[in-house]
Amino acid sequence: MYTFLNDSFLPAADASLSVTDLSIQRGYGIFDYFKTIGGNPIFLDDHLDRFYHSAAHMRLAVDHTRGELKAIIAELIQLNRFPDSGIRITLTGGISTDSITPGQPNLIITQHPMAPPGRGCPPPVRLITYPHQRQLPGVKTIDYLVAIHLQPVIRERGAFDVLYHRDGIITECPRCNFFIVTAEGTLVTPARNMLKGITRMKVLALAADAGIPVEERDLPLDEVRTASEAFITSTSRHLIPISHLDDFPIGATNPAATNSAAPATTSRAAPTPTPGPITRKLNSLLYDLVNSKK
Amino acid sequence: MYTFLNDSFLPAADASLSVTDLSIQRGYGIFDYFKTIGGNPIFLDDHLDRFYHSAAHMRLAVDHTRGELKAIIAELIQLNRFPDSGIRITLTGGISTDSITPGQPNLIITQHPMAPPGRGCPPPVRLITYPHQRQLPGVKTIDYLVAIHLQPVIRERGAFDVLYHRDGIITECPRCNFFIVTAEGTLVTPARNMLKGITRMKVLALAADAGIPVEERDLPLDEVRTASEAFITSTSRHLIPISHLDDFPIGATNPAATNSAAPATTSRAAPTPTPGPITRKLNSLLYDLVNSKK
Repeated sequence: MYTFLNDSFLPAADASLSVTDLSIQRGYGIFDYFKTIGGNPIFLDDHLDRFYHSAAHMRLAVDHTRGELKAIIAELIQLNRFPDSGIRITLTGGISTDSITPGQPNLIITQHPMAPPGRGCPPPVRLITYPHQRQLPGVKTIDYLVAIHLQPVIRERGAFDVLYHRDGIITECPRCNFFIVTAEGTLVTPARNMLKGITRMKVLALAADAGIPVEERDLPLDEVRTASEAFITSTSRHLIPISHLDDFPIGATNPAATNSAAPATTSRAAPTPTPGPITRKLNSLLYDLVNSKK
Repeated sequence: MYTFLNDSFLPAADASLSVTDLSIQRGYGIFDYFKTIGGNPIFLDDHLDRFYHSAAHMRLAVDHTRGELKAIIAELIQLNRFPDSGIRITLTGGISTDSITPGQPNLIITQHPMAPPGRGCPPPVRLITYPHQRQLPGVKTIDYLVAIHLQPVIRERGAFDVLYHRDGIITECPRCNFFIVTAEGTLVTPARNMLKGITRMKVLALAADAGIPVEERDLPLDEVRTASEAFITSTSRHLIPISHLDDFPIGATNPAATNSAAPATTSRAAPTPTPGPITRKLNSLLYDLVNSKK
């Protein structure tokens, strides 16, 4: 397995940074992450747009043009022979002379094999809520301090992940964006104080094209109680349906439980959580879009 | 120059971590930092107390006992022959198999030459205020994302550093604790939502011993306007007097400007900022304490 570091391809085990790099000393760096299917990077330009934006915002110089980065990525894919993979581009603060001023950034491109998301939705999962505002939320920094610190709590409560909110207004999961479908069938997702995911952007566009009303706006935690569906999005997993927010069953808990024809009313036992119809539809549209790129 | 990495002393240029370490991937790690004078570590047990506390809080295992760490530090000082220095012990999240779960931590001990603080106070400096709450503020993590991001703003405004506040309540500077002396001569410093520095602890004890009233409590920004003195504390610099908070001159701007005998009233031009009497006294007491340890 090869890793690209600054100007060369190295065996992954040899790719290392000085312990004085500002990522190790001060947690200072940015990254982006995309998948390849059949050797083709998916939505690469969108990810590179965001990578350059993150770098500029953190005042980290990228020495490579977009064309050069694409060529390096293509060569890495050829070298590693993982047609289905995740690729991460990281840019660190570099070696600082005073341990606070960024130096010449280090560029790292790593690849690992990863099965692409399938056409069907994965089973619904639980999220737990947590009051936290990510730092510099519009930038894809390497800062996951709180997310990692919360992992034992997430496991303890049988949850898939944590959903951050700021004074009761939902922002995001550490690595996913959050959506609900209202009882009226409108798709709603937070609009600020979070990272705008590439998958989020694609899902919003697919929904609009499919005639689903879309709102990007503040989403209070309380509103999830009246939602008919909820899901999260990410590059590696596409849509993941949400069955519970903390202990509250969402849309109790689908399919189309808020409709009069809901099967939930025909049984006294809680039914096995199932993805809702809009979640399934959007996941299927996304699958088709992604697989048209490969 | 040598660096200690996990189990061996290496030439500093050879001390490196895999790019898959969780510090580089996710900004996950902790550290501590102390000085040596004449080859003697200053307040080492206090720093090791905090190091072990930080590691435990972040669930990073330290493989070395306190005695082993002290022996390694002593050997590093012998190897490097920098009698006056700063030593940093860093513990990273290690190599993660899933890029979110910490692995076996990497332990890094680096040393660099550093002149010890002198007996006299350095010249007073300006701080600018910024609304920000550090994540996990009671733990000395490697997270300085916001501090580094703000450096150009600090430089632009001719300031020495930024002072964070949370809803108008002062917490800390990124690498220093903040104190005021009230018009009545009481020493006040924030008590929560910040890192409790070792120098802060020593200054509080020295003040109490010297009969100066001490309060650890919430300190609103507005209260600084009535302060007679302000200073910040750190391991590497001891006390640094503060002349201005944003554009407001503190104690306008000393010595003892709030007393009736203040020289500030004898001249129409703003006097050159000078450290206040309690700041000077505490700095001198700290100098004596530190130098009794060498």
